[in-house]
Amino acid sequence: MNILVINAGSSSLKYQLLNPETGALLAKGLCERIGIDGKFTYKPQVEGKQVLDAVDVAMPTHSEAIQAVLNALVDKDNGVIGSMQEIDAVGHRVVHGGEAFAGSVLITDEVMKALEECIPLAPLHNPANITGINACTAVMGKDVPQVAVFDTAFHQTMPAKAYMYALPYEYYEKDKVRRYGFHGTSHKYVSGRAAAMLGKKPEELKLISCHLGNGSSIAAVDGGKSVDTSMGFTPLAGLPMGTRSGDLDAGILQYLMNKYGMNIDEMLNILNKKSGVEGLSGVSSDFRDLETAAGEGNARAQLAEEKFAYEVKKYVGAYAAAMGGVDAIIFTAGVGENDKGIRAMVCDGLEYMGVKLDPAANDVRGKETVISAADSKVKVLLIPTNEELMIATDTAAIVKGK
Amino acid sequence: MNILVINAGSSSLKYQLLNPETGALLAKGLCERIGIDGKFTYKPQVEGKQVLDAVDVAMPTHSEAIQAVLNALVDKDNGVIGSMQEIDAVGHRVVHGGEAFAGSVLITDEVMKALEECIPLAPLHNPANITGINACTAVMGKDVPQVAVFDTAFHQTMPAKAYMYALPYEYYEKDKVRRYGFHGTSHKYVSGRAAAMLGKKPEELKLISCHLGNGSSIAAVDGGKSVDTSMGFTPLAGLPMGTRSGDLDAGILQYLMNKYGMNIDEMLNILNKKSGVEGLSGVSSDFRDLETAAGEGNARAQLAEEKFAYEVKKYVGAYAAAMGGVDAIIFTAGVGENDKGIRAMVCDGLEYMGVKLDPAANDVRGKETVISAADSKVKVLLIPTNEELMIATDTAAIVKGK
Repeated sequence: MNILVINAGSSSLKYQLLNPETGALLAKGLCERIGIDGKFTYKPQVEGKQVLDAVDVAMPTHSEAIQAVLNALVDKDNGVIGSMQEIDAVGHRVVHGGEAFAGSVLITDEVMKALEECIPLAPLHNPANITGINACTAVMGKDVPQVAVFDTAFHQTMPAKAYMYALPYEYYEKDKVRRYGFHGTSHKYVSGRAAAMLGKKPEELKLISCHLGNGSSIAAVDGGKSVDTSMGFTPLAGLPMGTRSGDLDAGILQYLMNKYGMNIDEMLNILNKKSGVEGLSGVSSDFRDLETAAGEGNARAQLAEEKFAYEVKKYVGAYAAAMGGVDAIIFTAGVGENDKGIRAMVCDGLEYMGVKLDPAANDVRGKETVISAADSKVKVLLIPTNEELMIATDTAAIVKGK
Repeated sequence: MNILVINAGSSSLKYQLLNPETGALLAKGLCERIGIDGKFTYKPQVEGKQVLDAVDVAMPTHSEAIQAVLNALVDKDNGVIGSMQEIDAVGHRVVHGGEAFAGSVLITDEVMKALEECIPLAPLHNPANITGINACTAVMGKDVPQVAVFDTAFHQTMPAKAYMYALPYEYYEKDKVRRYGFHGTSHKYVSGRAAAMLGKKPEELKLISCHLGNGSSIAAVDGGKSVDTSMGFTPLAGLPMGTRSGDLDAGILQYLMNKYGMNIDEMLNILNKKSGVEGLSGVSSDFRDLETAAGEGNARAQLAEEKFAYEVKKYVGAYAAAMGGVDAIIFTAGVGENDKGIRAMVCDGLEYMGVKLDPAANDVRGKETVISAADSKVKVLLIPTNEELMIATDTAAIVKGK
């Protein structure tokens, strides 16, 4: 069974062709500058097939992008499948499912209507995702089943005390202002892998999943269900990130906006794009650059690393309290998988709650492995995330269940 | 040694006359509607003296208010001291000391200048505090020493990773945007009492101080020093409170302001005055009303209580992680001292970190006592706060050290 996984942005489209039953990746790539000049990248994962790297392909709309993907996949010399009939279904990453979707769903006209209704909640992302779905329908026809997999869905199990803000209640009722959380596909994937690694059922485990990348979020996963997460109404919330501030004292916005005559959109642009570890360090949003600068004695780069690790550590403590304990802490995504220094800083001092990192085991990158000491009561796991495989797995399950 | 403690607001002035050496309270009261019609309340704490309750006294400015206080204190029938000479010093509560003051300080012309410089950080509070100091100088003369005791000072020991926001660094350098924290006098007082109750030196203890009232904040106190606290640049931050939202996803402000055409001051007014447990419950900002409504089955009142306790619990977990453990958790202030239900909800599920509440011991109000079980590794303490006594104690120490 082959699933085409699509992650459509406003002018880009990432894709992978996967077999979720075997986990085999057949090809992956990227369409960029859609609606501009069009650049196409294709990386077949089969020996002897030729890679295309940012070659010129006219892509006035997402439809030509999808067509380019299909052409490459079935190309008689460098393709990885014989024909489009070998694509059993398409799985789309959709950022926001609002309260309408607590799981992945087969795309129908009704679902498309519900996706449109979620646009105010994700004005940049959902329209692009919808465009991607429509482009697939236009190019592949209505007979290829398509599935929407939401970044928000995994977190729909949160209790009200976690998802409600202490705001006037009508902002929830009328305006749908609540915590949604994001990175749900990643948190779901690594939680499932953690259970497999520990030889337990998800129902038996209290997990804290730390998805630390350029965007970062943490989820408390109790019995296989998300019960709290650090991102909120938008992906600005929670932890400081590469360029995002995380949660804030709203009094700061008032003070700075009044002092500098900024409007709220200008302020949010700063909070989204010029804050986080980049704003604090003045060096970079990239943790590899921070590590280098910190190693060279740059005090603000050191502070940015310390701040980030400190806020992660506090979430770990908070979510252990929220669940009444924790069995395992998971590190995933770019920083979580590759930055042993950050992992060590997060775990340092958590011995009181049974966390004991093994420094030798922690000296590793991007590999599914246990990095806590043998006698650590709480296991610490490094699990590379694979959102595409999770999307393909969900898509296959829904298509088979039809 | 008698210390007059003054807490001046823009149109009100609270006062107490205290002996910090014995802890004896001689009199307390309140001047209200200063600059309007003037109401004066005087409560001598001596048998046989007459109480004045909101009687009419002309108070065009804070100076007449201070004069009314002095008149009452030395009144030949109902006074508690023979003359003004028996007031050894005045201790003023000052809300914001910025980064200039890490402790209480004798008021001089230089200090007054520094207080003026802190006005942008506390535009509502510091001017009133300054007015109160000037009124005392005008009425009592320059010879009576006056001391400023800051809500922020106790938290000046926080490390940078706790007080810095993940914002562009120039907002700290140029605009002094950082976490200051408030309720410092209360956190300092109860931390000191906790050490005394446990028979330990403050240096030996990791404490989490939960000041839960209409305004609420939590402090992590490691070795007698505040290392983190939930309030931030302003007292809006951190926990949800009676009417305040606590920390937020700034994306919510953008969404609501753009949708409803609000400016930032209108938005902040809602976050400060119409949010918190009042906004969520639609019932009240007063936890006694919430408890009643929740008991009668009001689901939103129950949610507001749950939300509040849940956020407190997460801070307890976070600060335990921040300090690498905790020896005692302190509950203080209106809700912390009187609401056994909230205390129980906060501690419920924290057994994994060694917290075990004793339900019988927890069935108590406003009394300095241990409420954890005898075998609880982490002690849970109820300690009524006494900010006035702390102000008087600091004031006496500074005056004696002169």
